[in-house]
Amino acid sequence: MADAEVSNKRVILKQFVTGFPTEDDMELVTATVRLAVPAGSASVMVKNLYVACDPYMRNRMSEHNDAAYIEQFVPGEVLGIFGVSKVVASGHPDFKVGDLVWGMTGCEEYSVITHPESLFKINHPELPLSYYTGVLGMPGVTAYAGFFDVSKPKKGDYVFVSAASGAVGQLVGQLAKIAGCYVVGSAGSDEKVSLLKTKFGFDDAFNYKKEQDLNATLKRCFPLGIDIYFENVGGAMLDAVLLNMRMHGRIAVCGMISQYNLEKPDGAPNLFCLVAKRIRMEGFMVLDYFNTYTKFEKEMAGYLKEGKIIFVEDVVEGIEKVPAALIGLFSGRNVGKQLVIIARE
Amino acid sequence: MADAEVSNKRVILKQFVTGFPTEDDMELVTATVRLAVPAGSASVMVKNLYVACDPYMRNRMSEHNDAAYIEQFVPGEVLGIFGVSKVVASGHPDFKVGDLVWGMTGCEEYSVITHPESLFKINHPELPLSYYTGVLGMPGVTAYAGFFDVSKPKKGDYVFVSAASGAVGQLVGQLAKIAGCYVVGSAGSDEKVSLLKTKFGFDDAFNYKKEQDLNATLKRCFPLGIDIYFENVGGAMLDAVLLNMRMHGRIAVCGMISQYNLEKPDGAPNLFCLVAKRIRMEGFMVLDYFNTYTKFEKEMAGYLKEGKIIFVEDVVEGIEKVPAALIGLFSGRNVGKQLVIIARE
Repeated sequence: MADAEVSNKRVILKQFVTGFPTEDDMELVTATVRLAVPAGSASVMVKNLYVACDPYMRNRMSEHNDAAYIEQFVPGEVLGIFGVSKVVASGHPDFKVGDLVWGMTGCEEYSVITHPESLFKINHPELPLSYYTGVLGMPGVTAYAGFFDVSKPKKGDYVFVSAASGAVGQLVGQLAKIAGCYVVGSAGSDEKVSLLKTKFGFDDAFNYKKEQDLNATLKRCFPLGIDIYFENVGGAMLDAVLLNMRMHGRIAVCGMISQYNLEKPDGAPNLFCLVAKRIRMEGFMVLDYFNTYTKFEKEMAGYLKEGKIIFVEDVVEGIEKVPAALIGLFSGRNVGKQLVIIARE
Repeated sequence: MADAEVSNKRVILKQFVTGFPTEDDMELVTATVRLAVPAGSASVMVKNLYVACDPYMRNRMSEHNDAAYIEQFVPGEVLGIFGVSKVVASGHPDFKVGDLVWGMTGCEEYSVITHPESLFKINHPELPLSYYTGVLGMPGVTAYAGFFDVSKPKKGDYVFVSAASGAVGQLVGQLAKIAGCYVVGSAGSDEKVSLLKTKFGFDDAFNYKKEQDLNATLKRCFPLGIDIYFENVGGAMLDAVLLNMRMHGRIAVCGMISQYNLEKPDGAPNLFCLVAKRIRMEGFMVLDYFNTYTKFEKEMAGYLKEGKIIFVEDVVEGIEKVPAALIGLFSGRNVGKQLVIIARE
């Protein structure tokens, strides 16, 4: 079986993207692949089970620019993507056939991973495997590191999370509650707002699309101001937040999804508030925290088993659904972590 | 003498300011004052010798807004201002007639200081007294704290300073050289650029008004990128800097003088670079560092005496010159620290 030649559906980037991505920017193609690694190679071949649609992928679809922070995709080649996979052939001593792993793979049915050291072993297969695209994967580490390491929360802090029902936001809110903070989230539909308040335990939440004046909204939600803003959206929300930060507040900049498709991003005219309020605004990247993964996985798996953290996913099935699912992130179509089932083992 | 009634010229704010301030927003009035403090009061009365024109004063001239960070001036009342003064009457045990002090005083010939605990004693009268409006006063502490405490320099770091010939900028550049950094400054005239390179020891400098493309200019000056940006100006310069920061760079936000007179500030469209490059951007206020003053004064006085730091002042004489001198800051008319002589002791 490990030597058979099989069909391999893959999603490739057709062309670099400007503005909002469309399904036409990607293409589903079918290739074939031998389920083997070259003799003497330390690669592994994996069968991809779940792949994650993540906002940062938009950045990789643009031609290189000064704000690029991760290798751009190559037109005509398969999209790189975080996924949960099973090893089907291995030339690497640390991986054997049948191992479950997560990490950067290709958006295709089978992938050759030439540097398998970048993969993480899955130590809690008793939890849903798909969680390794979310709460136990990259978004989980992002939320944990961004909240605890970058934001430096103290008990009683007032915390605001934007895109709060997303893969990262829902976790930041729950971690903030565990840390004894007061947490408010924003999201783009009443359904999501309800989820924040009833399922994730946010103290308050609002639908930003229904608010006329975000400054007034934040003043209503935070009469004493915001200590920590976990920034996922940028633009007008960031600008309103700046006016409502408290002295010595912290803004952990995780992402700015409202800005990714703009030719000319918005900036934040109220940036002088950084001085007036001695604010620390700090960008971070999850890649810098992957060396803490083992400790994180253990702690987060514990929270999940104890029911202290719950995780909501938006799941579609079939690799052909990836382009639509990925694009949906930018209109907020997904409710919770967007992932795609490629194969059920 | 201490009981005499004398004339007291004062500069008052006529009205709150919108946009660029003009001389007409202020007015010179003449009052009289008794050179005494009320019996039983712990106030001191000072004769003001030098006053400092500082950019932050613009913020106090606006009506209160969310970005305000210090008490607004009151129309009809004297401007608060940093100055060097001599005690002429005292009800406070820590101050006696003849003491030289610096701190927040009024823009007038004589001021009553009701909370003299906020004043600093002048311990190095052998240095020019005017230095206590600059290198040994508020701008000095600002430069020192912003550079060492907020920017956290390492030897060999690439440092960029805007408004580099100003009261704070000239010191940041010289401190960065003492710390073993490579330093480039920007200023608004060829005369200032020459000063940076020949007098303050900057490694390089440019006249931003002559550059077509600040991004290209910074790429030329910093082919490997910027580790520390000491931000004094905001706007287009900040936006270009963001594109040229190195990984884990630091932006110490001291001020944004290009923005203070704008109804709608510029923002910084390249703000996403904070994430891409894991940048820490942090606002700070000198008020938070005044408790370190004694140590600072000793160290800085040492540098001045050893000739390791030099300080350039732009001096005009006469209280009636204050409005023009203050307004001149916003067109960059001053070369070095702008101060006004009120009295020569």
